[in-house]
Amino acid sequence: MALTKEETIIGFIGTGVMGRSMAAHLIRAGYQVAVYNRTKASAADLINMGAAWQDTIAELAAKSKVVITMVGYPKDVEEVYFGEKGILNHAKEGSYFIDMTTSSPDLAQRIYAKAKAKGMHALDAPVSGGDIGAKEARLAIMVGGDEGDFQEILPIFEIMGKNIVLQGNAGAGQHTKMCNQIAIASNMIGVCEAMAYAQKAGLKPETVLKSIETGAAASFSLSNLAPRMLANNYAPGFYVKHFIKDMTIALNSAKQMGLLTPGLELAKTLYEKLAENGEENSGTQALFKLYLEQNGQ
Amino acid sequence: MALTKEETIIGFIGTGVMGRSMAAHLIRAGYQVAVYNRTKASAADLINMGAAWQDTIAELAAKSKVVITMVGYPKDVEEVYFGEKGILNHAKEGSYFIDMTTSSPDLAQRIYAKAKAKGMHALDAPVSGGDIGAKEARLAIMVGGDEGDFQEILPIFEIMGKNIVLQGNAGAGQHTKMCNQIAIASNMIGVCEAMAYAQKAGLKPETVLKSIETGAAASFSLSNLAPRMLANNYAPGFYVKHFIKDMTIALNSAKQMGLLTPGLELAKTLYEKLAENGEENSGTQALFKLYLEQNGQ
Repeated sequence: MALTKEETIIGFIGTGVMGRSMAAHLIRAGYQVAVYNRTKASAADLINMGAAWQDTIAELAAKSKVVITMVGYPKDVEEVYFGEKGILNHAKEGSYFIDMTTSSPDLAQRIYAKAKAKGMHALDAPVSGGDIGAKEARLAIMVGGDEGDFQEILPIFEIMGKNIVLQGNAGAGQHTKMCNQIAIASNMIGVCEAMAYAQKAGLKPETVLKSIETGAAASFSLSNLAPRMLANNYAPGFYVKHFIKDMTIALNSAKQMGLLTPGLELAKTLYEKLAENGEENSGTQALFKLYLEQNGQ
Repeated sequence: MALTKEETIIGFIGTGVMGRSMAAHLIRAGYQVAVYNRTKASAADLINMGAAWQDTIAELAAKSKVVITMVGYPKDVEEVYFGEKGILNHAKEGSYFIDMTTSSPDLAQRIYAKAKAKGMHALDAPVSGGDIGAKEARLAIMVGGDEGDFQEILPIFEIMGKNIVLQGNAGAGQHTKMCNQIAIASNMIGVCEAMAYAQKAGLKPETVLKSIETGAAASFSLSNLAPRMLANNYAPGFYVKHFIKDMTIALNSAKQMGLLTPGLELAKTLYEKLAENGEENSGTQALFKLYLEQNGQ
């Protein structure tokens, strides 16, 4: 039986920059949305749009057929689901949980198992596409869980994203997101080193980009982040601190599986150094600053 | 005074996979082309098309208004230009030399200086786009040298490539190509690690690519080389041995400038290990084999 818009209450936990845009799409699409966030202020716009504020996660879970979580770190996911006042202790049988936070694959599997034991359904569904992707409902959504649950929730995903793929069993969404972050991690180093080399060699890096950004060196980061580096624009599209979180999960997960990932290790080391320099709230393109330092700039 | 097709003899040295396609375009465009190569056999097609075989570099240089070189390693470039029987000792005053080999920026500057002292003109103009780019006349050409010489030679470049940019003084073309290779080097690590992680986590890597290849992790290598890795197709588009040559030039050049490039160093180390494993004539996507080994495959 499909979850009709009219009868389905979606509880949304986590109304930060990403979550806010995603929840707003659900309201506009006609769902009844209940919201909870650690700080109520950031849910104000959603409340104005008609979302029903909930004072606790327990209350939100008790009334929602579908609970979507978009919080910060794995420890937040852990608490929101497994805490005494958390989702799993208060949701109704038959509920659906969708964790869209980038979090650990292990934790996703634990949520899934616990939910299943209670007659509930869980999907892990991290996204990529950033604040702009969330705003424009163009997120890529990488999903892990049961096929039937995925089909049930697909219409909801389609309101928030475009490239929606069931990647496998519980945890597969998170693992896929890790693949995404792993590919980005080493590439960011390459982009920074290419631009630092260009500067150091006395070239015009913007002109170098004209030669290299459409060929074999082409990448999203080269085209989108290198120009920000060159303009000294370090405003966060994606925070350094969140990237470090993701790389930490990925590296732990790789180690557990017995896979050596020296590129990922190097990237994590460099980003941690950057964070130590006080750049944890900058955008990931701030990695370039480590190279500028070297150039004596 | 423009170099007319009818009156301009272009001497082409180096008729390997790339050079052969490039010289063929010049013949088809109506230039008189003289060719020399270490082994005559690989020039056979060009000779059939009308190219005039030369027994020595000295003879070729003596009769050509424009000499294009597309050889293997910097030591080959050195010999072809500076050898006793090389270009610089036998070319006519007013000749143009275009080295399209990926070679060292220093060497490009030395060729330029020596040519200038003799009343000759030199450009460094390495390319990217590989054998397919050469075949389809879509090479990116990154040029260093004097603006006037660049303008003079531009019609010739346009017969072989599409994205043709004067990057600065002598050596700037080679430096730009190094930026290209530096960006690729670290990215290749990221692509391999992402795919190795996907396999190790029990995901379907082809399905993972669907989720990640159009977002922030997007890159030419992810879309074009990861599928070859997954298909165990290690046929060379670009040889491991040539990539190691390029990374060696880039790393030496970065060190000379006092720039630390840990990503490039890591990539060079991994590729050298791969070459030691007997893969120097495989394509660069064979880096994945180092990760497969780890996976016990």
